[in-house]
Amino acid sequence: MITDARPWGGAAADIRLIDGVIAEVLPPGTVPQAGETLIEGRGRILLPSFADVHVHLDSTRLGLPFREHTGVPGVWGMMLNDRANWRSAETSIAERTTETLGRMVAHGTTSVRSYAQVDVDAGLERLHGVLAAREAHRDRATVEVIAFPQAGLLREEGSFELLEEAMRQGADVVGGIDPCLLDRDPAKHLDLVFGLAERFDAPIDIHLHEPDQLAKFSAELIVERTRALGMTGRVTISHGYGLGQLPHAQLVPLLEQFAELDIAWATIAPATPLPTLLIAEHGIRLGLGEDGQRDYWSPYGNGDMLDRTWQLAFTNNFRRDEDIEHCVAVATIGGRSVLGTAPALRGHLDRPGVAVGDPADLQLITGETVTSAVMDRLPDRTVVFRGAVVADGLELSAAA
Amino acid sequence: MITDARPWGGAAADIRLIDGVIAEVLPPGTVPQAGETLIEGRGRILLPSFADVHVHLDSTRLGLPFREHTGVPGVWGMMLNDRANWRSAETSIAERTTETLGRMVAHGTTSVRSYAQVDVDAGLERLHGVLAAREAHRDRATVEVIAFPQAGLLREEGSFELLEEAMRQGADVVGGIDPCLLDRDPAKHLDLVFGLAERFDAPIDIHLHEPDQLAKFSAELIVERTRALGMTGRVTISHGYGLGQLPHAQLVPLLEQFAELDIAWATIAPATPLPTLLIAEHGIRLGLGEDGQRDYWSPYGNGDMLDRTWQLAFTNNFRRDEDIEHCVAVATIGGRSVLGTAPALRGHLDRPGVAVGDPADLQLITGETVTSAVMDRLPDRTVVFRGAVVADGLELSAAA
Ligand SMILES: [Zn+2]
Ligand SMILES: [Zn+2]
Repeated sequence: MITDARPWGGAAADIRLIDGVIAEVLPPGTVPQAGETLIEGRGRILLPSFADVHVHLDSTRLGLPFREHTGVPGVWGMMLNDRANWRSAETSIAERTTETLGRMVAHGTTSVRSYAQVDVDAGLERLHGVLAAREAHRDRATVEVIAFPQAGLLREEGSFELLEEAMRQGADVVGGIDPCLLDRDPAKHLDLVFGLAERFDAPIDIHLHEPDQLAKFSAELIVERTRALGMTGRVTISHGYGLGQLPHAQLVPLLEQFAELDIAWATIAPATPLPTLLIAEHGIRLGLGEDGQRDYWSPYGNGDMLDRTWQLAFTNNFRRDEDIEHCVAVATIGGRSVLGTAPALRGHLDRPGVAVGDPADLQLITGETVTSAVMDRLPDRTVVFRGAVVADGLELSAAA
Repeated sequence: MITDARPWGGAAADIRLIDGVIAEVLPPGTVPQAGETLIEGRGRILLPSFADVHVHLDSTRLGLPFREHTGVPGVWGMMLNDRANWRSAETSIAERTTETLGRMVAHGTTSVRSYAQVDVDAGLERLHGVLAAREAHRDRATVEVIAFPQAGLLREEGSFELLEEAMRQGADVVGGIDPCLLDRDPAKHLDLVFGLAERFDAPIDIHLHEPDQLAKFSAELIVERTRALGMTGRVTISHGYGLGQLPHAQLVPLLEQFAELDIAWATIAPATPLPTLLIAEHGIRLGLGEDGQRDYWSPYGNGDMLDRTWQLAFTNNFRRDEDIEHCVAVATIGGRSVLGTAPALRGHLDRPGVAVGDPADLQLITGETVTSAVMDRLPDRTVVFRGAVVADGLELSAAA
């Protein structure tokens, strides 16, 4: 039982957890049952734990010596820089994915969807690294793995076969990327991605960095295939920067189709934000992620989704408390909706995830209100996964 | 003497400070002179201390109970919200400006240019509050005060007379704001501001929130008056959001005039950034500031310029170490250049402020490199003002 916690910053309550689910929300000061383990809320705010739905665990350098950035702008140049360097990191891929996933849990994240780059350079090594991290933290977090063709499917011989093999060896989601700009044959790229997903009955996640009208074109091709193959609710668009820049009159019909086909969206809170509230108003599932974490692509990303939640609020220039709380909702239950384990947020007043029947995947954070907690990002936090404390004060708890 | 410190993250050195100035940069392990006070660098990075050149100390609520945001968008609506609420804060204006300025020093800022709103509602109360904070921390920071007509000069009877009186009572800088959109008589607004500055031989700082071509027009009016009155090097434009959105072909001639007339620029690192490197390449003095600090205008701003430096890097999408280090240069020596106590940064390779002859206004921060320190923003910092430690571990030191 969690004692003296304030769900979404509201009145204090005691929360009884049974079998990994919130069983009762009780008045504060409830007498514990015999043998019941107590988790001290100490008046802190109770929220659903974070879901990071766009993270590249397989490229992390968190915890390793800081390395000067050597990438050049552009997806292909960055990919080549990563390819040239990832093998010479100070620790093995499994060690660093495990270290970083642990750091994410310690900071409140218990649902993760991570990429594993699959290409002719890495083969399945990076996939195996991410799967090892998932196994190491199986009692601390739920992890989905995306087989991700970072180098495209058509540029290098054997790429598609590797992606297929990755799905066979335990990846959960088929990845795709910039069907126009990277592979330069959008119909073929998407047909391969959708075809593979159909065969493995797997969801799809497509990185879309393309600009404005090109992003719109690629999104339309994705919509067409989602509809034709009956893959409603199975497709996520990641980034979609260019879509966010479309004129309102062009964006809205696209959002309506996303809603109709239940296409989800994952953002990393870039400086130029997506229209966060408009997406929510259309009932589109939107989750938040960190992207790279101090890796060969970028020095940003530190494993702390509370920092990223602040970033989502800041980039949207949100000042009203309810808008900032919506960012917390996106970073928690919004991400779970992308993973298919929670309903989409409708409108921006949803404050779900801490009621009877919700998963006991929770976090306690310090603050007077949810908004001040996002602004302060204090370290006194406790993380609960399936009813058990898995981290406290930004450190993992000893294994249960 | 500061022992074992790494200037700009370079090789360790001992730094001898005499009479508030860096007197010698010596090899590490130098034997101290008899009676010399030692400041332990412990391998940390030595940087110039921060300069916050755009902060509204007179509206801060840092350290007070968190308050739900009640402002409505737009400068006038926000001003009215502040006007309706600032008097009912839990502590006096002098107490909260003093508390916040102390927090800024504790986080590494020892040069400050703060606004004090002067209007028919507040009279000179807010000015007196900021002057009291300056006095309270006179041995910890250099503070310039801008008499700031937040409510315009022409909309409310008596506004200009109050601004004049503020200059008489100790304000250092004449403020102006949105000459077109707020007072709706740009020539008259600017003539009043420039006229007052001439009479008091004072510098000028003008808030410019106006969009694209209107911002360009207002900036041109500012340029014309700066040239006509021979006020080269005496004018700062704050924000200038709209200027940053101009097409390159329109922006560059404006930057050339700013450079010619040595017009400085202050930014708060908004989500849509100014062209930071282009400004540096033109040799224009650029400083960084926090704007409001958890006040009636916004919940952002926490007194920590290291956070704001991260924000400047992030919003510019800087990834290269030298670009991120440039953000540190803007936040430190760049701000001093706006205050007129240091030369402008030319290009983005300047790493100044820690050489013999530089002021002993310094900070030690934790990190492997300057870039990783900006990413991590760790609390083990030491702040030095005029050669004496004024803060350690984010807490003010006991008065010397
Ligand atoms: Zn990504
Ligand atoms: Zn301001």
